[in-house]
Amino acid sequence: MSKVNTPKGTRDFNPLVFVQRKYIFDTIAKAFQLSGFLPIETPSMENLSVLNGKYGEEGDRLIFKILNSGEYLKKVDSKALIEKDLKQVTSKISEKGLRYDLTVPFARYVVQHLNTITLPFKRYQIQPVWRAERPQKGRYREFFQCDGDIIGTTSLLNEMELLKIFDSVYSSLGLTDIIIKLNNRKILTGLSEIIGEQSRLTDMTVVIDKLDKIGIEKVQDELKSKGFDDEGLSTIKAFLEIKGDNKAKLAQLSQLLENSPIGLKGIEELSTLLNFTATVKVQRLEIDPTLARGLNYYTGAIFEAKPLDDSIGSIGAGGRYDNLTEVFGLKDMSGVGLSFGADRIYDLMEMRNLFPKHLSRTCDVLVINFDDQLLTGALDIVEKVKANGHSCMLYPEPAKMKKQMKYANSLEIPLVILYGEDEAAHSKFVLKNMQQGTQETFLIKELKSALKKTIINI
Amino acid sequence: MSKVNTPKGTRDFNPLVFVQRKYIFDTIAKAFQLSGFLPIETPSMENLSVLNGKYGEEGDRLIFKILNSGEYLKKVDSKALIEKDLKQVTSKISEKGLRYDLTVPFARYVVQHLNTITLPFKRYQIQPVWRAERPQKGRYREFFQCDGDIIGTTSLLNEMELLKIFDSVYSSLGLTDIIIKLNNRKILTGLSEIIGEQSRLTDMTVVIDKLDKIGIEKVQDELKSKGFDDEGLSTIKAFLEIKGDNKAKLAQLSQLLENSPIGLKGIEELSTLLNFTATVKVQRLEIDPTLARGLNYYTGAIFEAKPLDDSIGSIGAGGRYDNLTEVFGLKDMSGVGLSFGADRIYDLMEMRNLFPKHLSRTCDVLVINFDDQLLTGALDIVEKVKANGHSCMLYPEPAKMKKQMKYANSLEIPLVILYGEDEAAHSKFVLKNMQQGTQETFLIKELKSALKKTIINI
Repeated sequence: MSKVNTPKGTRDFNPLVFVQRKYIFDTIAKAFQLSGFLPIETPSMENLSVLNGKYGEEGDRLIFKILNSGEYLKKVDSKALIEKDLKQVTSKISEKGLRYDLTVPFARYVVQHLNTITLPFKRYQIQPVWRAERPQKGRYREFFQCDGDIIGTTSLLNEMELLKIFDSVYSSLGLTDIIIKLNNRKILTGLSEIIGEQSRLTDMTVVIDKLDKIGIEKVQDELKSKGFDDEGLSTIKAFLEIKGDNKAKLAQLSQLLENSPIGLKGIEELSTLLNFTATVKVQRLEIDPTLARGLNYYTGAIFEAKPLDDSIGSIGAGGRYDNLTEVFGLKDMSGVGLSFGADRIYDLMEMRNLFPKHLSRTCDVLVINFDDQLLTGALDIVEKVKANGHSCMLYPEPAKMKKQMKYANSLEIPLVILYGEDEAAHSKFVLKNMQQGTQETFLIKELKSALKKTIINI
Repeated sequence: MSKVNTPKGTRDFNPLVFVQRKYIFDTIAKAFQLSGFLPIETPSMENLSVLNGKYGEEGDRLIFKILNSGEYLKKVDSKALIEKDLKQVTSKISEKGLRYDLTVPFARYVVQHLNTITLPFKRYQIQPVWRAERPQKGRYREFFQCDGDIIGTTSLLNEMELLKIFDSVYSSLGLTDIIIKLNNRKILTGLSEIIGEQSRLTDMTVVIDKLDKIGIEKVQDELKSKGFDDEGLSTIKAFLEIKGDNKAKLAQLSQLLENSPIGLKGIEELSTLLNFTATVKVQRLEIDPTLARGLNYYTGAIFEAKPLDDSIGSIGAGGRYDNLTEVFGLKDMSGVGLSFGADRIYDLMEMRNLFPKHLSRTCDVLVINFDDQLLTGALDIVEKVKANGHSCMLYPEPAKMKKQMKYANSLEIPLVILYGEDEAAHSKFVLKNMQQGTQETFLIKELKSALKKTIINI
């Protein structure tokens, strides 16, 4: 046989993995639906004019580009070809790229369909995205994102609703040790303001963000080497040393940022949000003033979900943005969104053996195929089992009993029905419980109750 | 605002269309599951070595090719570039393509994972495919296929099972006027055999296939112009004139093909299959000896589903093949499969207004946001409604009542809860039925029964 494989960084999903992944997607979709989010889907490809420039230079490189159809070289300048001028040539031979995330297509969707959208618009979207990154453990070139966003409203009730969804999805999946870290970009801006370094917010936060990995002293060293002055360093140190429960942290922040209006605004937003989340009982929320992800686009709340033991990194994140669609010419479209990392959630649940056992069930009942003479009766039984809502199949050939039983075992089919000559003669069948190795004979007219009785126990 | 659009031939799916499409996919998936089919998914991209040459020359051209990452021009011969040698250049700058159908990826899957597959293997797969065809009404560049196959068994019980699934899916969707046409490739081979034109089977069937469109006389003319002799033409005419019910057609075929062993084998297979389908009560089966689709790969049964009025063409098709995986070096893997045309089914159901009304419901209950002081109570109601399994949201801002009501109407939310000062003072709420314009006041502790009573009626 020739060696055939999926492309590097992509995967086949076998039946068990498919069903387990679906369990995650369905749990997420259900949580969104329960809060009135509406599903949309966008095409796998977008025009490169939509995608380019939205993810930084690195992002542009990682977009999978689709070769134009037909005589795609015709339009290309010969000089560019001879000089192998990559940029020139690419722009001529490729007009479309594969979806890189769900946010830019959503922004494009909003602008394109604005006249049919009712604001506030709450949408969720669960689809694959593609990135030409170097594949490594836990990082794929095709992976799924599960995004929910609420746009057209600035109320902090929206942040609350998303945090509640975070909490309830992780709880439903049995991921009970997740912490949801919470911050507000205005607090980081406030910190930069009071030390007189507002223009270097990103420089500062990139270093602060390493706190967990390198510790407070090295963070200080690095900031110093970047030219932050001693007074600033001492304020940052006080900021990094903030601790206690959420209330205590807010109190310390208020003191530290008392001279920064924007910082105080951030604290007020966090405080209001915490009141809301307390009302709807969101668990596991922890203020982390150093949380600094997505500073390029987040303007208010920032949040991130992680397992306590930090074995696998972030499994979800989100925040408030003020300008979803400005890049497409539609200003002031504020919103707040979150994204579940389905592949990492899968890895974590797999590692912890959290998938319900029943997901591995392929088919409820196998009917043994004895003999062409008995086919009509056997098929009749199959249809009766299915009419009762249980999946069922007849083994397609009158193979040896041992082979058919082996098939049932291999597919972990829990019940087998035997309908041989004896049974046929008395309108009966034998129901065999494959897990317990027990069997019982029933009249065919008792099929419904026999199944009901037995299915409960398997 | 800048003009932004989805690429030509691709579509966004808005919430209603998404839910309607999901209804079709879920109906199909459920039918497969009930018969013990297992779901798999394969990556959107395949190596071009897997795809190329599998769909004919035209197919190769219609595969969307993905530009290699990085310095993709490096490996290309300068001469090929200067000469704009499309074939040479393409083979160097692109190694992957988008999935063109679900059959070739399935064959690749079987070969790659053979050691973990239990035969007979019944799999279904519902995923998008991409073809660079010229877009036109009802034909898209990204569309969904829904395939089911049973491999590793030659029993005609498998054909029966697929036909049963065809029938039950179309019935479930309310498509009651579908005919399932049935033929066997061996019968067409038999016809070519008895007229001594076995080497020209394809030539003959291409013309015969036009019968519905051009009529029997023009078919005769065209065959004559292709050099079929008078005796052959008269046999073909007799073949085309076969009519009556399925039993009568089989009898006429037996007579006509009595000297062709392969033809008689085809008739025997059809006859056995019809016995099986009668046992499990497959409706709407109609033998059509002229049905000739997929002759490149089908070796036994051929079937196709069409609405009676032929308004939209085939909405599903399938057949028996003997060599699914030979192209990847694994011989003798016989199987039978079917494919639902989800996009055409959608168009047909939309045209006939067949989607259940409840699919347009976006959210069950909107709670009006009166005042920040009442938020805690309002949020409590939202959580209670959700705990009862009904989707619910609080309007995120204390906007004017009129605006909030307009929102509920615009999203077709059937129930609105009002919880104002008066209500709060007496632990009550008002439940408004938006369709009937009626409203009733309940105690908050009666919420569950109030919803139960009202939801039934909307």
